[in-house]
Amino acid sequence: MSPLKGITAPIYFGSFIVTPQVFYTTPLTFALVNLKPILPGHVLVSPRRVVPRVKDLTPAETTDLFLTVRRIGRMIERVYGASSLNIAVQDGVDAGQSVPHVHAHIIPRKKADLDHIGGTDAVYDLLDGDEGDLGRVFSGSSTGEDGEGGNGKGNGNGRRSRFPAVDNEARKPRGEEEMSAEAEMLAREMENEPVD
Amino acid sequence: MSPLKGITAPIYFGSFIVTPQVFYTTPLTFALVNLKPILPGHVLVSPRRVVPRVKDLTPAETTDLFLTVRRIGRMIERVYGASSLNIAVQDGVDAGQSVPHVHAHIIPRKKADLDHIGGTDAVYDLLDGDEGDLGRVFSGSSTGEDGEGGNGKGNGNGRRSRFPAVDNEARKPRGEEEMSAEAEMLAREMENEPVD
Repeated sequence: MSPLKGITAPIYFGSFIVTPQVFYTTPLTFALVNLKPILPGHVLVSPRRVVPRVKDLTPAETTDLFLTVRRIGRMIERVYGASSLNIAVQDGVDAGQSVPHVHAHIIPRKKADLDHIGGTDAVYDLLDGDEGDLGRVFSGSSTGEDGEGGNGKGNGNGRRSRFPAVDNEARKPRGEEEMSAEAEMLAREMENEPVD
Repeated sequence: MSPLKGITAPIYFGSFIVTPQVFYTTPLTFALVNLKPILPGHVLVSPRRVVPRVKDLTPAETTDLFLTVRRIGRMIERVYGASSLNIAVQDGVDAGQSVPHVHAHIIPRKKADLDHIGGTDAVYDLLDGDEGDLGRVFSGSSTGEDGEGGNGKGNGNGRRSRFPAVDNEARKPRGEEEMSAEAEMLAREMENEPVD
């Protein structure tokens, strides 16, 4: 079930139905909360059409995607009390993409927020492998502990984890209830966000 | 001097004049080659207007910036024989931004291109501190070895280098001649690139 009014058809992220996690849609774009956020407020923005690469997008889809990234980034920064944002697209499998559906990560940042695990750019280590687990959960299990699926790329593909204490396995996937509650809260916040 | 026809006024990246490195412009956006590319073909795309944050951009600037990112990414992928792209914006100082002027990194990727230093996501370690050196060179020295300037943030700000063999200090800044030659080549390639 969607926290958004008027959403009746399922919304797909790659081959996975993510409707309960979606907090904002336009005719061309949607935004969803994350299964294993790297930091509180880490969200994804994707085109409605399932295509793997930015170059596969039409100009209209590209424009709508990044206007949405800008607007959601502004909301996320306000709601989570952040001072900066990391915005990143892993555009293709050799750039670390695991779910073959264009998506921009938006990660709210605060001063010294990752100093305990190496500093500002430790965010990228945490990004490592994140999507593989998203796929594993959304493919069938609501707890994420016993499902299996996705594109089978998971943590292979030349990835590594250098901070075992905070790596992907140590970050517990969230339950659907927690994600839906966050999606509902963010959906309300988007209603207060200026259009431009 | 610019490799582009019709460019007479200097083009600024933050407080630095980067005209010889610029290979593409629109009325709202420009693209430049990098002083210390992480991988061959690593380029930056910025709005003409010097503002630090994506949220500072108008919708028209945002649209033009990311349509340009898409088009340049497609060209870079073709010219450098890549199969994927990393696209990243460090949007604010607490996200690792050092030059306070919005810029998207485009980094062409190939299968296993960074396996010798840790895998696909080692690209982010290399991104670490890159802009500080850009600033250091463009502020006055053409060799980059003895200049000092930029915004003084350099390699501080919670950054770290975990791969000394390939870190920022080991990557020699390129001379202006080499960068201009690459900018001229990419300017010609952009003439062959479809508009949409």
